[in-house]
Parts: sequence; C-alpha cells; structure tokens
Amino acid sequence: MPSSPIRKLVPFAERAEAKGNKVYYLNIGQPDIKTPEVAQQAIKDADIPVLAYSHSAGFQSLREGLVGYYHGKNLPVSLEDVIVTTGGSEALLFTFGSAMDEGDELIIPEPFYANYNGFATASGVKVVPVEATIENGFALPPVSAFEQAITDRTKGILICNPGNPTGYLYSKEELEQLKELVVKHDLYLIADEVYREFTYDGAEHHSVLSMEGLENHAIVVDSFSKRYSMCGARIGCLVSKNKEFMAAAMKFAQARLSPPTYAQVASEAALKTPQRYFDEVNAEYVERRNVLVDGLNSIDGVFCPKPKGAFYAVASFPVESTEHFAEWLLSEFDHEGKTLMMAPAAGFYAKPELGVTQARLAYVLNVEALKECVEILRAALEVYPHTTR
Amino acid sequence: MPSSPIRKLVPFAERAEAKGNKVYYLNIGQPDIKTPEVAQQAIKDADIPVLAYSHSAGFQSLREGLVGYYHGKNLPVSLEDVIVTTGGSEALLFTFGSAMDEGDELIIPEPFYANYNGFATASGVKVVPVEATIENGFALPPVSAFEQAITDRTKGILICNPGNPTGYLYSKEELEQLKELVVKHDLYLIADEVYREFTYDGAEHHSVLSMEGLENHAIVVDSFSKRYSMCGARIGCLVSKNKEFMAAAMKFAQARLSPPTYAQVASEAALKTPQRYFDEVNAEYVERRNVLVDGLNSIDGVFCPKPKGAFYAVASFPVESTEHFAEWLLSEFDHEGKTLMMAPAAGFYAKPELGVTQARLAYVLNVEALKECVEILRAALEVYPHTTR
Repeated sequence: MPSSPIRKLVPFAERAEAKGNKVYYLNIGQPDIKTPEVAQQAIKDADIPVLAYSHSAGFQSLREGLVGYYHGKNLPVSLEDVIVTTGGSEALLFTFGSAMDEGDELIIPEPFYANYNGFATASGVKVVPVEATIENGFALPPVSAFEQAITDRTKGILICNPGNPTGYLYSKEELEQLKELVVKHDLYLIADEVYREFTYDGAEHHSVLSMEGLENHAIVVDSFSKRYSMCGARIGCLVSKNKEFMAAAMKFAQARLSPPTYAQVASEAALKTPQRYFDEVNAEYVERRNVLVDGLNSIDGVFCPKPKGAFYAVASFPVESTEHFAEWLLSEFDHEGKTLMMAPAAGFYAKPELGVTQARLAYVLNVEALKECVEILRAALEVYPHTTR
Repeated sequence: MPSSPIRKLVPFAERAEAKGNKVYYLNIGQPDIKTPEVAQQAIKDADIPVLAYSHSAGFQSLREGLVGYYHGKNLPVSLEDVIVTTGGSEALLFTFGSAMDEGDELIIPEPFYANYNGFATASGVKVVPVEATIENGFALPPVSAFEQAITDRTKGILICNPGNPTGYLYSKEELEQLKELVVKHDLYLIADEVYREFTYDGAEHHSVLSMEGLENHAIVVDSFSKRYSMCGARIGCLVSKNKEFMAAAMKFAQARLSPPTYAQVASEAALKTPQRYFDEVNAEYVERRNVLVDGLNSIDGVFCPKPKGAFYAVASFPVESTEHFAEWLLSEFDHEGKTLMMAPAAGFYAKPELGVTQARLAYVLNVEALKECVEILRAALEVYPHTTR
C-alpha cells in the first residue's frame, strides 16, 4: 500500500508545534462537533456483565433501527438488506471482497477518498480513475468517459456522494446517467453515502437506494462516524438488495465474528438524535464553508468551487506543487506564530500528473479559526518563493 | 469463502428450541465468564464529548499498558512493536495482508481455527495443512512434515497456542523445533496466543516473543476477547519486532482509520484486572474440563485427549460422521427434553477426509450443564442408528 502525502507532512507539523507555532489542522475529516448526548448517555447506562460477541450482522435491534432510519429518508430498506460493519471502512472492505475477484476493475471518478486505494490493494482490485475537473466543480465526468473505461474485468463504479474530498453532491440527473450505464453493462453502482446528512443551500441528497430498477446493482456504504460525530465508535453498515452480494458479504462478516458491542449500543441510541441537532450542525457547516471558500476565492490566484455537501473543499493554488507548499507552510512559514496543515490533493488522484496544484481543506474547525486560516494562506502566498502568480 | 459446518446446524438448533427442547451450546467460544468490573466501570466513567478517531495504532496509553502487560510476562516488547487491532480477527487480517502476497503459502497444523481460512481467502493466501493427530493429543506434527510442505511460495507457519480447537499447549521443545525451521528457511512464525492465560495443571505457556534469535520471524496475534471475557469489545493487537512487517501492517491500520474508542477505554482498564480474577477463572475451567473430558472418555467408544490450555476439546465419536450425528442430536434426539450442539471437526480440517468422526466441544458452560451434556451424549450413542461401536 502506498503512503499518503498527508502522512508525510505529520513530522513537519510536529516540528512546527515544537517551535511554538500554533498549527490549524485542515487536513483531516475529524469534526469538532459534539457526539449527541443520547449516544453518550446510552453507554453510561449500559449494563453488560458479559461483553459477548453480537450477531455477525450486528444487533438485530440496531439493524431494525437502521431500517427505520432509512424509511425516514424514504428509502425502501429491509432488515435483510443491512449488515452492521466496523465503520464505513469495513463496509468498503467487505464490498471490495464480495463484489470483486482478484484482478477485477472498479471505476472511480477522481479525485477520490485515498483509502479506496488501500482497500482495493488489500482485495487485489484495480482502480480505474475517470477524471472530474475543478473547472466543472468536480461534477460527474461525462458518461462517455466511464464507458471508455469499461473492460471485461470491470465489476462496478464507485462514487462518494456527497464527495470526500470535493464536497460535490451528485444531481438526480447524474445518478440517472450512472444508473443507465450500470444496468446496460450489468455493473454494481457502489455509493459511499456517509455524508448524506451534510447537504447545503436547500440541495437534496439522492441515494442510489431510491432508484427503481437499480435494486440488484446498488450497494451503499454508510457510517455513523460523520453523521453523529462519532468517528471513534467505528460503526457503519453495508446496504444492498442484491442477495448474492449480501450472502458473500455475510461470510466476511462471520469471519471477523462481530462489530464492537459498546459502539453498537451508542449507535442505536444515536438514531434517536433529534432533528434539531442536524439543523444546528448543518447551519454551522454552511457558515464555515462560506468563510473558508469565499475567503479562499478572495485570494489572488486561488480557486475553490463552492461545494453543496460534506465538509471538504478542494482548491487550486498558484503554486507548482501543493505538496511542497504544504510542507513549506509547516516548516518555513508562520503568520503571527500561526500556520496550518492541508492535504495536498495529489493523494486523492490515481493519475500522478493530476491535482498537483490542488489541496483539500476540511472545514472542521470553528469560524474564527477558519478566518485565521484564510489570512495565513493569503500572507503565505505573498512570500512563498515558488508561487506561479 | 466456504460456509462452516457449524453454521449449517444453526437452523436445526432453532427448530429444536422451537419444539421445546433445551439446547446446550458447546459449539461456540463465547465464555459465560463475567467481564472484569474495572473494564465495565471504565466505560461508565468515560467522558468523551467528541467520540473522535484514535491513532491508527491505538491509543498510546493502551499500547503502553500492553507493553507493561508483556513485561509482566517477561516478554521484551516495546511500544513500536504493538499495533492495537479490532479484535484478534483484524490482527490476523493485517498479518495475512502484510506478510504475504497473493498466491503465497502458509503452513498450519490441522485441525485449526476455521476462520484462518476466511482471512486467507480474503488475502489470496493458500493454506497448506500439516496433520496433527488425535492419537498424539494434537501435539506438533514432526518437523519433517513441515519441511516437506515448504515450497518457494511458503512465507510462514501459523500456530495457535494454546490451540483452538484442540486446547493443545505447545512445549518449549516443540517451539524450539519450529524456531530452527523458520530461521533455516527464513519464514515467519505466526503465533495466535489469544488463550495465553488459559493453561492448566501447572503447565507454562511459552510465547514466540520470548525466543532469542526469532525477533525478525515472530509475529503474535493477541486479543482481549478471551483473556477478559470481553469478546464483544473487539480489541486485539499485533506484536512483532520485524520493522518491515510492522510498517506494512501499519498501512492496513491507517486504511481502516482506527480501532473502536469505547472498547479501547474498557481494554486499557481491563489490564488492571487483579490476578485473583484469572486464578478463579482458571480454577473454574479446570473443573469444567475435567468434568467434560473425563465424562466423554467414560462413554464407550469416545476418545478425548485432555488438553492443557484454552477451553476447547476435540473428541472422536463412534459414528460415521459427526456432521450427521450433530444434526441428528438437534433434529431427532432429546434426553429428558434436553440436547446439545457441538461443532463437527471437519470444519477445522483443510483435508476433506480428516476429522469426520471428531467434534469440538467448548467447555464454556458451568459444571452442572457439562455433566448433563455428557449424559446426553451417553444416552444419544445408545440409540443413534449410525453408531460404529
């Protein structure tokens, strides 16, 4: 497995802090939002004298709760369509292992979540990227580009909706195009929808689970991590109506015995989180997004499409290499004793020539911190020796 | 991945219960022992307002606690030798993925824990079995048998010590033989030591971590699940001094982000479990083992070596097929309204011709229940139509 450009930066951030600089971390998807009180309380109230294995598909009560959650989103999901996993990560691992054999191919619009590469490598699956461009705000690439990428070994198309790293929210029309394609070529359409709740400006999320005629093709990777700011619980789920796929995934689930029990207790309780929580969280993210994205676009030479979902943005910078720029920000620069860490976008592209002037910024810090981050970048680009503007 | 013979029995057990029969479950490794109070209390006391990801290698405090635990066993383990995993299962998955490539071979004495097959399949690794026999009490097969199984593609030997399903505890001499072999052929010696604490009759456990000259070969798969009867926590660890292997395993760890947070809190606290707990638990298991194994051997035609570790025993029965016998016990038989479920041993052998007259029985029920189980089996073999005695 390859090392990510983000991890290479960690020692630089540590040294920046050791020098006494304040470092803002815009490189990670770890929100500062509080976990819902109901989830925390459920753990305190739990009385589990023998902390036994749960069912390999997860506690039935949690699965029933998830079915209720999906019904609340008008998604026709039944109990047998849901396997509880150890985070969305494990749902991805089970998907790659169950839907594909060694040497099979999976088409993914790039830039994409870097760990897709890791799970593909672990499963012997070849990732075939199709480029989405920053000029188009990372909209779905033309269907012709997908069609050209299909071979005898292609087993599916994977999308992240809304997207990490781009924040792009696919329209119903885009999803209809993908539906037509996967039905025509008999492929899986795998949708990582872990940011489903994070949609802004009145935009609506469309799940592949809602699309008629896609029942045997749609696989959803889902997670409690971002929705309830409980990344550390490590609870997600795999949802599909394809019985053959689910039977294969269940064997992977049985091999690893069960998902974590305490976390399942917290997750089941989290499903009772009041709507008010999401309204407040989304209002906060909209404000953060506006501060960050509008701020970035106010810097000469920086361009950042305004995403409608998740809590990431990918911006292009007037530099030769954001890998170098990000390292320089940590090792050579500070603005009044402050600097920041961002994720060079090269790590989110499969083709090595792409994304070298782009970076992902996660707006997981409060508005005041994000305002400072914009000023840090503005000041940095005034003095960075390798600017191209 | 293949389905296990145990899972095929589940519907029969459900029907036996539906008929009103009491079913004793000797088929699973889920102990009825209470989780230590310190672990349960730690969860109630935890205050984690934002349930964030932990470090991919696990909380440093937990890793430090584990180093202290190993030092207490006179095992020279350092912080960088430990990665916290989501159960021993994930430690196995990381091991197979990191130590081996697609098509590589791993030698395992059979019978062995059936899920090794699952992780091997998921990683594209070929399992090469070497037969241990019930007549020898499942002692280590002769080194010549291992040597004959070694090919260009062999990357390691995997042992479970003490063993699931056999309960066999390897002697220091047996481990020395394996050491010589893996050093000579430059292989990994992977030891699943999750039952380390469960040794009886004064027998001592010898870890591969204690063997000088094995530092670059030894990989230990470990777990909190059995040691502290907290199978549902899903916390284990991977231990090795081989830096190249650990660097590869760390990439798998990073891809799945982190192990579960609540469970790490409980596990760290569990490390403070007083010795008294283990003394009591082991005394209980010794009594259970004696009741079960002595009872089995008192039945005409049944043979069961008395294991010195873990909480399983493999017995041979005077029947043509334990798969059929186990099914018949659930579907056609009851002794005063009671019957039992045991695990046909064929599922623990790679070679299809082996283990067909053997079954694994886990002594995870109390002494009174185990006494009843012996009488159920005694009565069953009096009337079972396909007995060979």
